[in-house]
Amino acid sequence: MKYGVVAFPSKKLQDLANGYRKRYDPHYALITPHMTVKGVFEADDKEIEQVAEAIHKIVRNHKPFELKVTKVSTFAPITNTIFFKVTPNEEILSLHKDLNEDFFGDKPEYSFVPHITIAQKLNSGEHDDIIGQIKMFGVDHTEVIDRIHLLYQLEDGSWTVYETFRLGEES
Amino acid sequence: MKYGVVAFPSKKLQDLANGYRKRYDPHYALITPHMTVKGVFEADDKEIEQVAEAIHKIVRNHKPFELKVTKVSTFAPITNTIFFKVTPNEEILSLHKDLNEDFFGDKPEYSFVPHITIAQKLNSGEHDDIIGQIKMFGVDHTEVIDRIHLLYQLEDGSWTVYETFRLGEES
Repeated sequence: MKYGVVAFPSKKLQDLANGYRKRYDPHYALITPHMTVKGVFEADDKEIEQVAEAIHKIVRNHKPFELKVTKVSTFAPITNTIFFKVTPNEEILSLHKDLNEDFFGDKPEYSFVPHITIAQKLNSGEHDDIIGQIKMFGVDHTEVIDRIHLLYQLEDGSWTVYETFRLGEES
Repeated sequence: MKYGVVAFPSKKLQDLANGYRKRYDPHYALITPHMTVKGVFEADDKEIEQVAEAIHKIVRNHKPFELKVTKVSTFAPITNTIFFKVTPNEEILSLHKDLNEDFFGDKPEYSFVPHITIAQKLNSGEHDDIIGQIKMFGVDHTEVIDRIHLLYQLEDGSWTVYETFRLGEES
């Protein structure tokens, strides 16, 4: 089964992201807006209990973090993905590191750019048409994230939450 | 903000339900297959912390429960909603009771019929066309549910998980 770990931002930021996703992101219906902290990895039913236990141990050593988005950016020309860029900070980077190095799943191939996707799978024409417009509209929002979620993927591609982990809690 | 409490069944049962939902349920993309244990209620940002705390207290007194589906049923003619009927048992009924009586939100207007919706908002013709077929195919599955989730609804109608509660845990 495929798993991943994400942070869901507040309703306010999710609603804003969905305004774009509804039109420009074919994954719109598969998962609500999120910042991925551990990309897709495979685990079976038994392993996942160990994964959950290991995440519990990790989150104890991490405090709630600031999620600040002040910029619309794009991964083009690598992929035509447009996103709210999350300003990296020590808390986010170290949480990502702990969830990805010496942990379940492969080490990520790319360097970590924390972000909330708002458009993807666009062709170059579409991408170039809308990027200027979305950048001009911009984004400016700061909030505190105090929990992350372990999700698994169904056959139709949609994601279900398996478990929530509060950052910094002893539980 | 609108909140609700659900149990997500296993991937296997969700995949089965989604086979129908994809075609017959306009809520398909808004939430993955689930059994509602507390229907929609309103709470603001401050109240929800109290709600979460209260659910934590409740789940301590409830053990994981058996979710057994052996029958396809319908709420017609009240509403044209087709569902996997969950065989009621003491654990499910008492969990529902504790989450709905003397708790946040209004007391439910209808008696509790535990179920996983697979088709809804059908017109009568559609309903009558497919009910026989789905009933004939049937369902027969039993599993153990060890957690419930508190969700909130976004402006577009989709649901995001706020928190997971493991049944019977002290945390």
